[in-house]
Amino acid sequence: MANVNVGVIGYGYWGPNIVRNFFAASNCTVKAVADARPERLAQLAKIFPTIQGVTDAEDIINDKEIDAVIIATPVFSHYPLAKKALENGKHVMIEKPMTSTVAEAEALIELADRKGLVLMVDHTFLYTGAVKKMKDLVNSGQLGNINYYDSTRINLGLFQPDVNVVWDLVPHDISILYHLTNERPISVSATGVDHLRNGIENIAYVTLNFQSNMIAHFTCSWSSPVKIRKILVGGDKKMILFDDLEITEKVKVYDTGYSARNDEEKRKLLIDYRTGDVHIPKLEMKEALAGLACDFVAAIQTGKEPVSNWKIGSDVVKVLEAAQRSIKQNGKEIKIVADYERVK
Amino acid sequence: MANVNVGVIGYGYWGPNIVRNFFAASNCTVKAVADARPERLAQLAKIFPTIQGVTDAEDIINDKEIDAVIIATPVFSHYPLAKKALENGKHVMIEKPMTSTVAEAEALIELADRKGLVLMVDHTFLYTGAVKKMKDLVNSGQLGNINYYDSTRINLGLFQPDVNVVWDLVPHDISILYHLTNERPISVSATGVDHLRNGIENIAYVTLNFQSNMIAHFTCSWSSPVKIRKILVGGDKKMILFDDLEITEKVKVYDTGYSARNDEEKRKLLIDYRTGDVHIPKLEMKEALAGLACDFVAAIQTGKEPVSNWKIGSDVVKVLEAAQRSIKQNGKEIKIVADYERVK
Amino acid sequence: MANVNVGVIGYGYWGPNIVRNFFAASNCTVKAVADARPERLAQLAKIFPTIQGVTDAEDIINDKEIDAVIIATPVFSHYPLAKKALENGKHVMIEKPMTSTVAEAEALIELADRKGLVLMVDHTFLYTGAVKKMKDLVNSGQLGNINYYDSTRINLGLFQPDVNVVWDLVPHDISILYHLTNERPISVSATGVDHLRNGIENIAYVTLNFQSNMIAHFTCSWSSPVKIRKILVGGDKKMILFDDLEITEKVKVYDTGYSARNDEEKRKLLIDYRTGDVHIPKLEMKEALAGLACDFVAAIQTGKEPVSNWKIGSDVVKVLEAAQRSIKQNGKEIKIVADYERVK
Amino acid sequence: MANVNVGVIGYGYWGPNIVRNFFAASNCTVKAVADARPERLAQLAKIFPTIQGVTDAEDIINDKEIDAVIIATPVFSHYPLAKKALENGKHVMIEKPMTSTVAEAEALIELADRKGLVLMVDHTFLYTGAVKKMKDLVNSGQLGNINYYDSTRINLGLFQPDVNVVWDLVPHDISILYHLTNERPISVSATGVDHLRNGIENIAYVTLNFQSNMIAHFTCSWSSPVKIRKILVGGDKKMILFDDLEITEKVKVYDTGYSARNDEEKRKLLIDYRTGDVHIPKLEMKEALAGLACDFVAAIQTGKEPVSNWKIGSDVVKVLEAAQRSIKQNGKEIKIVADYERVK
Repeated sequence: MANVNVGVIGYGYWGPNIVRNFFAASNCTVKAVADARPERLAQLAKIFPTIQGVTDAEDIINDKEIDAVIIATPVFSHYPLAKKALENGKHVMIEKPMTSTVAEAEALIELADRKGLVLMVDHTFLYTGAVKKMKDLVNSGQLGNINYYDSTRINLGLFQPDVNVVWDLVPHDISILYHLTNERPISVSATGVDHLRNGIENIAYVTLNFQSNMIAHFTCSWSSPVKIRKILVGGDKKMILFDDLEITEKVKVYDTGYSARNDEEKRKLLIDYRTGDVHIPKLEMKEALAGLACDFVAAIQTGKEPVSNWKIGSDVVKVLEAAQRSIKQNGKEIKIVADYERVK
Repeated sequence: MANVNVGVIGYGYWGPNIVRNFFAASNCTVKAVADARPERLAQLAKIFPTIQGVTDAEDIINDKEIDAVIIATPVFSHYPLAKKALENGKHVMIEKPMTSTVAEAEALIELADRKGLVLMVDHTFLYTGAVKKMKDLVNSGQLGNINYYDSTRINLGLFQPDVNVVWDLVPHDISILYHLTNERPISVSATGVDHLRNGIENIAYVTLNFQSNMIAHFTCSWSSPVKIRKILVGGDKKMILFDDLEITEKVKVYDTGYSARNDEEKRKLLIDYRTGDVHIPKLEMKEALAGLACDFVAAIQTGKEPVSNWKIGSDVVKVLEAAQRSIKQNGKEIKIVADYERVK
Repeated sequence: MANVNVGVIGYGYWGPNIVRNFFAASNCTVKAVADARPERLAQLAKIFPTIQGVTDAEDIINDKEIDAVIIATPVFSHYPLAKKALENGKHVMIEKPMTSTVAEAEALIELADRKGLVLMVDHTFLYTGAVKKMKDLVNSGQLGNINYYDSTRINLGLFQPDVNVVWDLVPHDISILYHLTNERPISVSATGVDHLRNGIENIAYVTLNFQSNMIAHFTCSWSSPVKIRKILVGGDKKMILFDDLEITEKVKVYDTGYSARNDEEKRKLLIDYRTGDVHIPKLEMKEALAGLACDFVAAIQTGKEPVSNWKIGSDVVKVLEAAQRSIKQNGKEIKIVADYERVK
Repeated sequence: MANVNVGVIGYGYWGPNIVRNFFAASNCTVKAVADARPERLAQLAKIFPTIQGVTDAEDIINDKEIDAVIIATPVFSHYPLAKKALENGKHVMIEKPMTSTVAEAEALIELADRKGLVLMVDHTFLYTGAVKKMKDLVNSGQLGNINYYDSTRINLGLFQPDVNVVWDLVPHDISILYHLTNERPISVSATGVDHLRNGIENIAYVTLNFQSNMIAHFTCSWSSPVKIRKILVGGDKKMILFDDLEITEKVKVYDTGYSARNDEEKRKLLIDYRTGDVHIPKLEMKEALAGLACDFVAAIQTGKEPVSNWKIGSDVVKVLEAAQRSIKQNGKEIKIVADYERVK
C-alpha cells in the first residue's frame, strides 16, 4: 500500500489527539500541521519535532506531497477549507459537525463524488468498543425492534461563541443512532433556552420522530453541575444502557421487555412484562481515534467506504438544522426530507 | 381540637399507605374505607380490624359522622366523587392528579370555596425531607435565580389503561417545581410515543417555558430497564441534584455556577465559571404521608392553607392538559393562561 | 400436615419481623409473644390483636399447646431459654448467634438430639435470593475452586452492651461462607479495637485460614460514616461480588480469573489473566424470613434438616469464640478443632 | 537558583511518568535515562529526543554533570544503586518502597546524612490534592482525635515476581497515614495467602496497633474482579471517605461521630451518636508527580525538607518488614521499635 501523507488544519482542543493517532497509524505520515497561533505550533514542535508547523492552512491545501487533509477548526470554516482541499484533489476528513448547513454538506458531497475523493466526518464514537458492541447486539437481532433511543449528555461546559449546545453535543447521538438503526426521522421537535439571551442555547431538548413509531430524544446541557453521559436503547426484546462514564462496565444489556401478542391483548393491556438477567459484555479497549485513522487511510488506499461516511455526516447536519429551526419556534415540528440519495 | 373522622375511598395500591398514616395521625380517626373489591376489604380487616369496610363509596359520602373524605381511586372518578362529597359538606383530599380536566378542577374549587370546605390534593413529595430542604435552600436565596428544572423519572412501569405516562408521573415534578418557585409557565411543548399504538403514551418529554427565561423539562417513561429518579435544579449561584433513589445522600448542593456581569461580557463570552465544594445536607426522615395527614387535619381544624393546596393541584392539571394537546400535535407550543385567580 | 403452634420470646428489634413472617406462614399459628416490656406488648396488640402477649417467657415455655419456641432475646439468654424449652419438648429456633459459648451450643445440640427435637438457628441470609443464587453458582462448578471470601460489613451502628462487633456482624458471613463451601477453617486470627476502652470492640478484622489455601476475611465496624455490605467470593474460574445495598443488581458474576497450568509456569509467573463479561442474574425476590419460617415448620412436620441447621449455628459460635480470643492476643493464631461430629 | 541536572534509572512502568514530570519542571533538566532494554530507550527517543538514553546505570551515577539521580527500578536494586549514587555525591530520590530491608534504609539515611545530600522517597500520594486536603482537615482539628484508618486497595493486578502484595500496595497507605497523623504503630499483625503457593502473597490484611488506641487496617489484593481504592479516616468529631476512583468527589467529609462525655456514660453506653451533613471539598487538580518533582528540586536547592522525606520512607519499610514476618506466622503480633531517631 502506498503511504498516505496527511496534513492537519487546526491544533486546538482536538487537533493534538488527531495528530497523535495519525502519527501512530500505519501507512500514514503526518507531514504538516497548520495553526495560526504560534504558541500552538511551539507546543506541536515540542512533542512532534518531525512534523512541520505552518501558520497558513493554504500551505497544507497547496502542498503537492500531501494526499489527505484533516480539518479540525471551528464549524463555520469547515466548508471553505474542505471545498478548497477537495478542489486541489485532497481526500478530506472533517471534524463533526460536518458543516454549518445542509447545503454546504451537499455541495461538498457532490464535489467529492465528482472528483472521486474520500470525504469523511470524524464521528469518533462509531469507533469505540461500546458502540461496536451495541451495533453487534442490534445486528444480531437480540434487541428485537428498536422502540426508543434516549440520551442525556450534560455537564458544565464552555459556552461556544458560534454554535449552540445542540450543534456541540447532539452530533454524537445522531451518528450513533444512525449507525445502529439505519432509520431516518420524519420530523424533529426541539426546545431550548439561552440563559445569556444571546441566541445561543445552552440547554436543549430534541425529539426525533420516526415512521416506525421509534422515538429518539436527546437532553443536552452546558449548565449541569454533574456530568452525565448515558444512552438508553430500548428494543422490544432487550434494552441497553450505555454509560460512558463507567470505566469497565459501560454497556449493560437488560433482558427486559414488554409485549402483547395481539391487538386484543394490547387493548386489554394484557402485557407481558419481563425483567431478567443483565449482561455486561467485555469491550474492545482500543482508542477510538486510532480506529478512525485506520479507516480513513484504508478508504483512501482501497476505496472502501469508511464507517463514519459522508452520508452520516450530512444527515447529522440535516437534523441539527431542523432542531435549530424548531427551537426558535418553541417546539414546532419540522419535517425532514430524506433526500440525500439524490445528491449521490 | 375536635377530632376529625375520615373516610377513605379506594383501597388499591396507594390506599393502604393513606390508611396507615391517617390511622397513626393525632386528632384523627379513620372510620371507614370503601372499595368495591371484597378481597381488598378482607385485607383491610386483617390489618385494621377497627376500621369499617364498605363496598359502596356512597356509604362514606353519606355518613353523617364522617368529616373528611379521601379519594384514592382512578383519575376519571375523582371529579364525581369529590363533587358529591363537597356537596354533602365533607372536606376532601384527592389523590394526584386532581381531576381529568381543568374544567373539573375549577368546578371543585368553586364548590369548596362556596361551601367553605378544605380541598386538597395529595402531592406527597411536598412533604418529603428532600423537598422541604430544597424549598429552604431556594427561599434562603443561596441558589440565586432558578435557571432550569430538569427531571428524569423513568422505570419499567405498568401501562395504565386510562392515563398516559405524563398524567402518571409528571404531577410529581410540576408540584415540586411550583412549590419551589411559585412561577407559572407561559407555554408547554411536549412529545411522546405510544408503543402499543393505543393513544396512551408510554414515553413522553415535556418542556415548560417561563417568562423569566427559566426552562423546565420532564423525561418520563414506563419503558426503561433502569429506574431513575433525578431532578436537577439550576440556580445561577448554586445548583441542586436530588436523586430520590439515594438512601442517605438524596440532595446534593453544588457550589457551581456561571455568570457574566454585563451584556458586553455576555457578548464576548467572558463568563465566570465556577465549580466548588459540594454540600449534602442531612434531611428530616419523617414519612411524607404522615406530614400530609397532619397538614390536612390541621387545615380542617384551623382553616390554615395546607402546603399541597388546591391551587397547586389545579395548576398541575392545567399543564397536563396542555402537554397532552402538544403531544398530539408533535410538540406544538400550547399557551397556558394563568387564570386560576379568576375562580377563587 | 398438623398445624404448628409457635411462641416467640422477645419482641425487640427483630421480633416483629419474626412474628410478621410466621403469622403469614402456612401450617403455623403464632399463639403467644413474650416480652417483659409492657410498651412492646402494647405495640404487638395494636398490630396483631389475635396474638396473646405475655410478660414472662416461662408462660410460653410451659404452654402445653405450643409446639415450637423462637428465641429472639439478647445472646446471653439464648442458652438458658433454649435449654428449658427443649427440656419441655419444644422445637427451638434461636436468633444468631446461637449461644455465648461453644460449650453451650454443644449442650443444646446434645439435648435436642436426645429428645428428637428440631434445633435451628436464624441465619436469615441463607434464605435470601442472593445467597441461594450464589450457592447455585458454586454448586454448578462455574466458579471453580474458591480461593477467597472477603466481606466488608460496616456502618454507624449502636454499640452493644454485651457483645462486640464480631458477635454482632460476623455470624452473617460465617454462615454464608459455610453454606457456600462446606469447608471449615483450621485457625482464626483477628484484631480489633474498643474505642470506649470497655473491652467491647467496635471495629474488628477477622481472618480464617483453611487447609485448602482458601482465605476468608471479615471487616466489621460500628464506627463507619458510610454503610457498606459487600462480599467478594473469588473462584479460580469466576468471581462474585454481592453488594447487598444494591436494589436490583445485588449479585454480579465476573468472568475473571487467573491460572497457571503447572508449577513451572507459576514459578515463572506465566499466569493467564482473564477479565471478561459480567453477568447479573435475576434473583428470587421472596422475603428471606418467610423462607426461614417455612423451613422451620417443614423441619418440624417432616423431620428434614433445615438449611440453617444447628451445625452451621454451632460452627459459627466456634469461630466467634476463637476470634475473640485472638483479638485479646493482638492477632495470635487460634486453632479451630473441627470436632462437632463428636457431639452428634 | 542553579539548575538541577537529573538522571533517571529505570524506564519501565513508572519511569515515563517520572521523566515527563521532571522534563516539565522548572529549574531542572533531565539529562539522561538508563534502561538495559533497547526497546525502552527507543521509546524514550521517540518522545524525548533531547534526553540521552544509556543502557548502563553506571553511566548516570558516574556522570559528573548530573546532580541528582532518580531510581525507578525493582525494589531489590534500590539499595545498591542509591548507595553508589550517594557515594558519588548525588542527591537521590527512590521509588517506593525505599529498600528491601530496614537495615538498607538506615544505611542509606546514615550515608546521605553524612554527605549532606537529599534522600527522598517517591510516595506520590502525599502530593495529591486529596491527601493535601485531608492533611488540612486533620491539622485544623475538625476531625478531632483520629480513631481509625481503614483502607481497601484491591484489583486484578499482575503478580510481582519479587515482592508480595503488601510491598506493592501498602506503602501508599502507610505513607498517607504517617503524613496525616505523625503517629507510629507499636505493633503489626498481618495475614495473607499465596494462591500460587510460591511464598509471594497475592492477598493480605495488615493491622497496625497504636499507643493512642487508634487502629489502622489495610486490605490489599491482586485477585479482585473489581477495582476499589477507598480509605476511611475516622475521627471522633468527623470522618473522611477518600475514594480515589471517584472523578470529582474523591473526598467526602462526614459530620458523623459518637462520643461519651465520661467513663460513667461509656459504661452505661450513653453514647451520643451523630450523623449530619456531608461536605465534599473541591480539590487542587495539579498532577501529584509535578508537585513531587518541584519538592525534590527545591530540597536540593534550598535544603528544606521535602514532604515525602526519608523518615517516612524508612518507617514504611519498617512496617512492611514487620507485616511480612507476621504473615509468615499467621498473624502473630510483631512489635515495632520507633528507633529511627537514633540514626539521624
